[in-house]
Amino acid sequence: MSQSPETQLAAFRASIDNLDAILLHTLAERFKVTQAVGRLKAEYDMLPADKAREARQIARLQALAKDSALDPEFAEKFLNFIVAEVIRHHEKIRDDQ
Amino acid sequence: MSQSPETQLAAFRASIDNLDAILLHTLAERFKVTQAVGRLKAEYDMLPADKAREARQIARLQALAKDSALDPEFAEKFLNFIVAEVIRHHEKIRDDQ
Repeated sequence: MSQSPETQLAAFRASIDNLDAILLHTLAERFKVTQAVGRLKAEYDMLPADKAREARQIARLQALAKDSALDPEFAEKFLNFIVAEVIRHHEKIRDDQ
Repeated sequence: MSQSPETQLAAFRASIDNLDAILLHTLAERFKVTQAVGRLKAEYDMLPADKAREARQIARLQALAKDSALDPEFAEKFLNFIVAEVIRHHEKIRDDQ
């Protein structure tokens, strides 16, 4: 490899920046959907939490993580991180009503 | 809208599952790149942390978050969450050497 380490590092960082843009835009889309779920549940008096759905999501994400050589424990941590933000949004929707 | 709330909820959840698959696979790709960065830095004795790079990343993610109607504070929390996992990976690379 004739590239200097600095050039290689810059190329890796450009990939990280592209992937971060995908992640942020995908998260923005995901929060749009969970906000629609929050409004639907509020409108029809559906239960806010659904433990069976959450268990299925965790199992599914762990299987996807395994396929992608990601730590399945990380997949669960990641879902918990996102769900905490979703709950914050739902509380905001409720407070705004 | 003639769809029942249950049908609407199922459609929203199918979108969330698709978006989660994008997120997990993109994260898997991102960790592949940060692991390559970890190996490069170890090989060439480059400094593991780069505060100026991190500050640029946070500013960039906050601008992307603003464009996507995401909370810029969430963008920073998200980067911190990912970076904590990257540090765990780098420590593992170091311990394995």
